[in-house]
Amino acid sequence: MNFKAKLIKAANTNKSWLCVGLDPDLDKLPSPVTKSLSGTEEFLKAIIDSTKNLVCAYKPNSAFYEQFGAEGITLLKGIINYIPDDIPVILDAKRGDIGNTSKMYAAAAFDYLRADAITVNPYMGHDCVKPFLDYQDKGIFVLCLTSNPSSSEFQKQYLKNQTMLYEQVARTALTWNKNDNLCLVVGATKPEELGELRQLVGGDIPILIPGVGAQGGDLELSLRNGANSKGELAIINVSRSVLYTGKDNDYVDKARAECLRLVSTMRSVLNLA
Amino acid sequence: MNFKAKLIKAANTNKSWLCVGLDPDLDKLPSPVTKSLSGTEEFLKAIIDSTKNLVCAYKPNSAFYEQFGAEGITLLKGIINYIPDDIPVILDAKRGDIGNTSKMYAAAAFDYLRADAITVNPYMGHDCVKPFLDYQDKGIFVLCLTSNPSSSEFQKQYLKNQTMLYEQVARTALTWNKNDNLCLVVGATKPEELGELRQLVGGDIPILIPGVGAQGGDLELSLRNGANSKGELAIINVSRSVLYTGKDNDYVDKARAECLRLVSTMRSVLNLA
Repeated sequence: MNFKAKLIKAANTNKSWLCVGLDPDLDKLPSPVTKSLSGTEEFLKAIIDSTKNLVCAYKPNSAFYEQFGAEGITLLKGIINYIPDDIPVILDAKRGDIGNTSKMYAAAAFDYLRADAITVNPYMGHDCVKPFLDYQDKGIFVLCLTSNPSSSEFQKQYLKNQTMLYEQVARTALTWNKNDNLCLVVGATKPEELGELRQLVGGDIPILIPGVGAQGGDLELSLRNGANSKGELAIINVSRSVLYTGKDNDYVDKARAECLRLVSTMRSVLNLA
Repeated sequence: MNFKAKLIKAANTNKSWLCVGLDPDLDKLPSPVTKSLSGTEEFLKAIIDSTKNLVCAYKPNSAFYEQFGAEGITLLKGIINYIPDDIPVILDAKRGDIGNTSKMYAAAAFDYLRADAITVNPYMGHDCVKPFLDYQDKGIFVLCLTSNPSSSEFQKQYLKNQTMLYEQVARTALTWNKNDNLCLVVGATKPEELGELRQLVGGDIPILIPGVGAQGGDLELSLRNGANSKGELAIINVSRSVLYTGKDNDYVDKARAECLRLVSTMRSVLNLA
């Protein structure tokens, strides 16, 4: 089963388009968790156990594991392996390099870590993204319009043809989509552009939408503007506001409660029966 | 000593602006080297031993280590540690994410791996690069115009103000340079634009120039167009054509001979006494 099929199946089973970001941050761990790699592992596994029937995907961000060096990579592999087989894993890595090198990044993400999908940076163009797209069963999320404040600096530059750079990235990326595995990243902090991009790319492209929660994006608007006509393929990612809502022994319950709150809105907005 | 001072000192000592890329590829290892991590480590250390008085820097590309997972990261840390203290290490990682996340990437590169410099991707704008630039003693190489064939796809799009995107990136990155640690990446396959960019950014910005060797960039032209008026700060990176020139027991001698050939041209073109 390819990434998109696995994603839709998980979303239908759990009636949810919520993706939980698994980003371990020692400074934010709840007080009962030991500030160590083993404590972090237990924490992440507890979060997975309590949320796995409420999500369509998990998204570990590589940076939060790389900070721990080699042991962090072992932790990342262990966490990906721990996630139930029917929940897809999007590795947030924002990789991209010349073709010969991107091949190695793709091997690290897909052959070694066994992720189902990855985020990639389009600045270097097609030959840097192709080695990822060549993995037909994997989902390749191209950064389009990101959720951070300075995303406008280059992404919203108008080109001579009157389109903005991010729109040119979306249009161009569509021409790369030979294996029906292209996906996009569009921040929840840009709801209008999200709606326009959904129109532009059509209803078959999964869009990962970070920025709801700590970054302030609007959930309902992101769903309405990001989903296709069937209410599908708008993957709402939330990381910090799920993981670190509980500060004490209640952290698992609070994480689940926050997911339930988000999923309840989703079910209502998208009419997920 | 900050990165730029360390770089200039190494270049002056070795009379060389050559950077050797340390990119282990099992398929290309010379026949006497065991195709394993320990074989790779011995190979890289032998290359370092035989070239360390001919270079101004080494540049391991993270992807080639990440393909081996956690053990690859241990190898990368070991190789960085093995490089003599007076030769700066540029970690080629092309990282970039929202601020909170870029902080973790910077910690991985500088606190854990102890690299002297890193390559970063500008697509997400200033707040994604700032956590790297905040390390005052480290060099931050922003991708500007890359050496790969499809670099033109977005980087050479004309903006409304008649500049191309890569030029806008260079101009904008200059405004971020509060700590005198901004550097750029400009491919050797674009020698004319390299010359224009050197004019644009002035004589104090180190430029990393990949693409001489396997990718076909011209060494002499890259030096003439990339160096400042003192013949400095054009860092010529060569990876495959140094590492994998020798196929048999002569691989160390052949790697050194190829470095000598390149450095000899450099000394002549740049009048390095």
